[in-house]
Amino acid sequence: MLEKKVRMMPLDQIEIRDGFWKEYMELVRCHVIPYQWEALNDRIEGAEPSHCMQNFRVAAGLQEGKFEGMVFQDSDAYKWLEAVAYSLMWHPDEELEATADGAIDVIAAAQRPDGYLDTYYILNGLEKRFTNLTDNHELYCLGHMVEAAVAYYKATGKRKFLDTAAGYVNCVYEHIGIGEGKKPGYPGHEVAEMALVGLYEITKDPRHLALAKYFIDQRGQQPLYFAKEREENQNSWYWHDSYFQYQYYQAGLPVREQEKAQGHAVRAVYLYTGMAEVASATEDAELFAACERLWKNITEKQMYVTGAIGASEYGESFTFDYDLPNDTVYAETCAAIGLIFFARRMFEITKDSRYADVMERALFNGVISGMSLDGKRFFYVNPLEAVPEASEKDYRKRHVKVERQKWFGCACCPPNVARLLSSIGGYAYECSERELYMNLFIGGDMKAVLDGKENRIHVETRYPWDGEVRIRIENESDSAFAYAIRVPGWCDDFRVKVNGEVVEAERKKGYVSLDRVWKNGDEIQVTMAMPVVLVAANPRVREDIGKVAVMRGPVVYCLEEVDNGGQLQELYLREHPEFEVAYEPELLKGVVTLTTQGLRLSEENWGEETLYRPYSGRTFTEQTLKFIPYYAWTNRKVGEMLVWVRI
Amino acid sequence: MLEKKVRMMPLDQIEIRDGFWKEYMELVRCHVIPYQWEALNDRIEGAEPSHCMQNFRVAAGLQEGKFEGMVFQDSDAYKWLEAVAYSLMWHPDEELEATADGAIDVIAAAQRPDGYLDTYYILNGLEKRFTNLTDNHELYCLGHMVEAAVAYYKATGKRKFLDTAAGYVNCVYEHIGIGEGKKPGYPGHEVAEMALVGLYEITKDPRHLALAKYFIDQRGQQPLYFAKEREENQNSWYWHDSYFQYQYYQAGLPVREQEKAQGHAVRAVYLYTGMAEVASATEDAELFAACERLWKNITEKQMYVTGAIGASEYGESFTFDYDLPNDTVYAETCAAIGLIFFARRMFEITKDSRYADVMERALFNGVISGMSLDGKRFFYVNPLEAVPEASEKDYRKRHVKVERQKWFGCACCPPNVARLLSSIGGYAYECSERELYMNLFIGGDMKAVLDGKENRIHVETRYPWDGEVRIRIENESDSAFAYAIRVPGWCDDFRVKVNGEVVEAERKKGYVSLDRVWKNGDEIQVTMAMPVVLVAANPRVREDIGKVAVMRGPVVYCLEEVDNGGQLQELYLREHPEFEVAYEPELLKGVVTLTTQGLRLSEENWGEETLYRPYSGRTFTEQTLKFIPYYAWTNRKVGEMLVWVRI
Repeated sequence: MLEKKVRMMPLDQIEIRDGFWKEYMELVRCHVIPYQWEALNDRIEGAEPSHCMQNFRVAAGLQEGKFEGMVFQDSDAYKWLEAVAYSLMWHPDEELEATADGAIDVIAAAQRPDGYLDTYYILNGLEKRFTNLTDNHELYCLGHMVEAAVAYYKATGKRKFLDTAAGYVNCVYEHIGIGEGKKPGYPGHEVAEMALVGLYEITKDPRHLALAKYFIDQRGQQPLYFAKEREENQNSWYWHDSYFQYQYYQAGLPVREQEKAQGHAVRAVYLYTGMAEVASATEDAELFAACERLWKNITEKQMYVTGAIGASEYGESFTFDYDLPNDTVYAETCAAIGLIFFARRMFEITKDSRYADVMERALFNGVISGMSLDGKRFFYVNPLEAVPEASEKDYRKRHVKVERQKWFGCACCPPNVARLLSSIGGYAYECSERELYMNLFIGGDMKAVLDGKENRIHVETRYPWDGEVRIRIENESDSAFAYAIRVPGWCDDFRVKVNGEVVEAERKKGYVSLDRVWKNGDEIQVTMAMPVVLVAANPRVREDIGKVAVMRGPVVYCLEEVDNGGQLQELYLREHPEFEVAYEPELLKGVVTLTTQGLRLSEENWGEETLYRPYSGRTFTEQTLKFIPYYAWTNRKVGEMLVWVRI
Repeated sequence: MLEKKVRMMPLDQIEIRDGFWKEYMELVRCHVIPYQWEALNDRIEGAEPSHCMQNFRVAAGLQEGKFEGMVFQDSDAYKWLEAVAYSLMWHPDEELEATADGAIDVIAAAQRPDGYLDTYYILNGLEKRFTNLTDNHELYCLGHMVEAAVAYYKATGKRKFLDTAAGYVNCVYEHIGIGEGKKPGYPGHEVAEMALVGLYEITKDPRHLALAKYFIDQRGQQPLYFAKEREENQNSWYWHDSYFQYQYYQAGLPVREQEKAQGHAVRAVYLYTGMAEVASATEDAELFAACERLWKNITEKQMYVTGAIGASEYGESFTFDYDLPNDTVYAETCAAIGLIFFARRMFEITKDSRYADVMERALFNGVISGMSLDGKRFFYVNPLEAVPEASEKDYRKRHVKVERQKWFGCACCPPNVARLLSSIGGYAYECSERELYMNLFIGGDMKAVLDGKENRIHVETRYPWDGEVRIRIENESDSAFAYAIRVPGWCDDFRVKVNGEVVEAERKKGYVSLDRVWKNGDEIQVTMAMPVVLVAANPRVREDIGKVAVMRGPVVYCLEEVDNGGQLQELYLREHPEFEVAYEPELLKGVVTLTTQGLRLSEENWGEETLYRPYSGRTFTEQTLKFIPYYAWTNRKVGEMLVWVRI
């Protein structure tokens, strides 16, 4: 019942040709991936060295030296390899593959005879390994290695990296777990859980699934491993004073007992993704119920309208229900990506469009806001309200940057954006033997084997700027399958025609499923009305009372100072605004802008010298408000930005 | 031109008998002062020991031991002695005076032959003295010693403590300053500046004024002493990363060049108070212009409606113009008290009611909010919006307590409240030879020598609950003087009668000055209309847009959960609310409450499961809103509180 009903369509069967997404993919392929390789090898002038590949070479005995960099430095290489793998799937590149093979050779050479492979401990003393699972990221590096190795195997069919990763997994399996001589630990930073299920799907080695399941089951069990480990090894600990304590790691309670998303947001959604994988692979209904509960808590109480999560910079963490400050927000790019990971698994198990809705929301807003339009600068933090002076002078907003930062070293968000965007096709299309699910509306061509036959599917759309999607099916002989099209949660007027005829299809869990015999040349035409919608937040969200967010389709809009002047808090929408909707090809690489006659609370009669005075109603002046897509903010000029506007 | 035109009326000439203030004074006298003495002597069960008097005893050789406590621990004894001095002025108490004399004996016994007196360095090595003026509070302790010694001399006429303090001042004068063998330093935490001018007024020793003037003039001069000191002594420094850098100490620029209030708020207003004192004592117009500029910056751009200052917990500091967050606020009780110190000097130099207006605003709101109605618990931080769950779970609000804290040790705010409240009479009345200024409306009796004759002045009022003030003058023979009554900035309808006759007096700088020959039994009747006023903030104050604060007279009101339910952000005032104004004698020791029919943004149709949905206007339900005075919040039950209410 919990097995995955559908799977990502293999990336090598998807050729994306889309006005919106293709450029992002090409930025990743042509800019981010090569740049990152230089960074991993300390060849970026003026940048702090990464030491990442150097650590592997030193551990492999290919070079003299000592460990340098962060304790999780190895993972940067793995994230790069994963992005490379996806990129190779849709854009074969012998030179890049050779470079990756070379990197894998070095990594494999660093592996110890028993399979162990973490350069921090190899170089600092193996006797200390597995003594600080809480904070030293050994199992986090393992997770990213497995993620990358699985992807690289799928991309190239080469087993070397997969075997290396499986070797480290098997070594961990010998040392971590329940039983004589084993330590009952689990990862401080989750990711291995989901990775191991992916590995198991290839290897079918029962140890691989068992280890994933063990990591999930053991987490948060009493006596608490992290507390014991800390005492025994006298490890320092940062979260003494914190509200969340071990819930920073989602390890304060057994996962099945967790009711609310807590602690470090990226870790949390990585864990929940792993829980969904294990629940599916082991048909564990109780565990799946926990996934649903946590999903509901996030999306109904702790998610920004941009799909971003993590309200607080302290611990990069969730805080509490309805606490969604716009200006001191954390909203890490990686956390929104992690939410997409979680969403995809939940969709694959349930075929419910609610999950894909969140996936789309996060993707078009909280994720791509993290990268500049030229692919060269990145945000970790994605605020919904920004004031440059506040970011400079207000300590509680010091993490909120008003310009994306040049990315020098290797760190989490840029490679995470890279691996997501270079695999975006797989998020758009999922399939089973006789079903094809279209979750994202992305133009291009696919080859899909359905009903045992190869079908070519050609998609044209200007989404998200336009709600028209045209799909043409080409096949050698008729094939019977269901083409399921997601009816987006934001869409009130969704129409489908097949070969020009209106189809009144039943909706199942948010999909219009066209189940029929498809003939060569059949055409589906989807028309989604895409009006501008004002969105209100639940009144319990203190920060959004009296305000609305402006959306059109999946895209959240914002006001920027460059278009609207400063003091954006003074701007009001009229109660029933009429918007001019215009596609501006020259603006921000082509966006639809929204313009309306609004109001500005008048500063007249105040002067600079009056801070308080008796209230005598509000006076406004007319002002044109121009909204641009949120994801594109601060690509022109640094200034104020605002998503939630007064009304 | 800058000499003080008026002076505080001596406290021994004022007998306060006032329904509102007398109880505070008695709380200080009967509870706070005795409790603090126990604390200074480490006799509070279950409390961290203060070590304060012990340090003095050890330094005096009366006891074995070492220095314990904070580097500024000495200052706690001085603050206590200052509060005692004021209390003795209006309530002579032989036993208390004997206790104070005993403390002074111990303090004096700790003094070194050269006058030096800081137990931290006496016990940790005198060779290190004056090597960390930036952070080690030697000159801060000096300042508080002088403040206390001056007060104690005025209260008792005893010179011992004054001579001890002058001895330390003279020692500092030999070591700190410009010239051969001197260090060109100045206090890291200001207070000595104002204290030294007070000392000079008694001693007339030119060194005492010169040292005050030097501290002011030298501050922030290049090369920066604090930077040099840090390098030379390899002192650590906390503010490397900060925006304000040396402006944390108001020492990044010469004080005459400072345009905005910056850095630690208490230090800032203590400095400005000292600047005003020195400007007055030395007729320094340029320095006074800096005081006026900084005053304007604070009161026109950086002051809460409660008179509180200091927007940020980081550095307990000012941030930038119009940045006045209500929920993450610092608004330290001591900073509001410091603003009152500054205001009083500015008033004494200018006789302008603007300064007394701010004094009153801070006193009735930002200061007394710091103490519970039973005098046993204190706030350092005085938020204008509080949510218990946020204070627990949101790290950026962890400093915002929703219950006043039991005061165990000796620290800044409680003794500061004590010294202010026990000298409140002096803030109410200021006089010159032929002028009497009434700044605060406090009931009681005064003896004032005016026109060379003794006058008794009897004041009756229920202020701040009522705007009627009756003043009766009693004298043996007619006396000609000006009775100047402040017309509060909040008051639009201010009427004065003398002996029942309406007087149309000219207003001078915000005062109605009744300059006439007063006969025994003359009566002045002041009637201030006291409607409920909604107050709006300048639109540049982001946090207050679309909201108003409710005031009546000088009192700022708030909503509490106990009266209005939770989710206070959902409450709206009607555009033209009508208030029921009721004095409730049993509530919160007697307060006027304000009740009105307001609205609550409806949660109906939202349910718990919807976080966002299309906006379709707002729906409200009727709700009675009950406001209580802000200062009295969280004296009943912990819960939400809100000052700025939506309208």
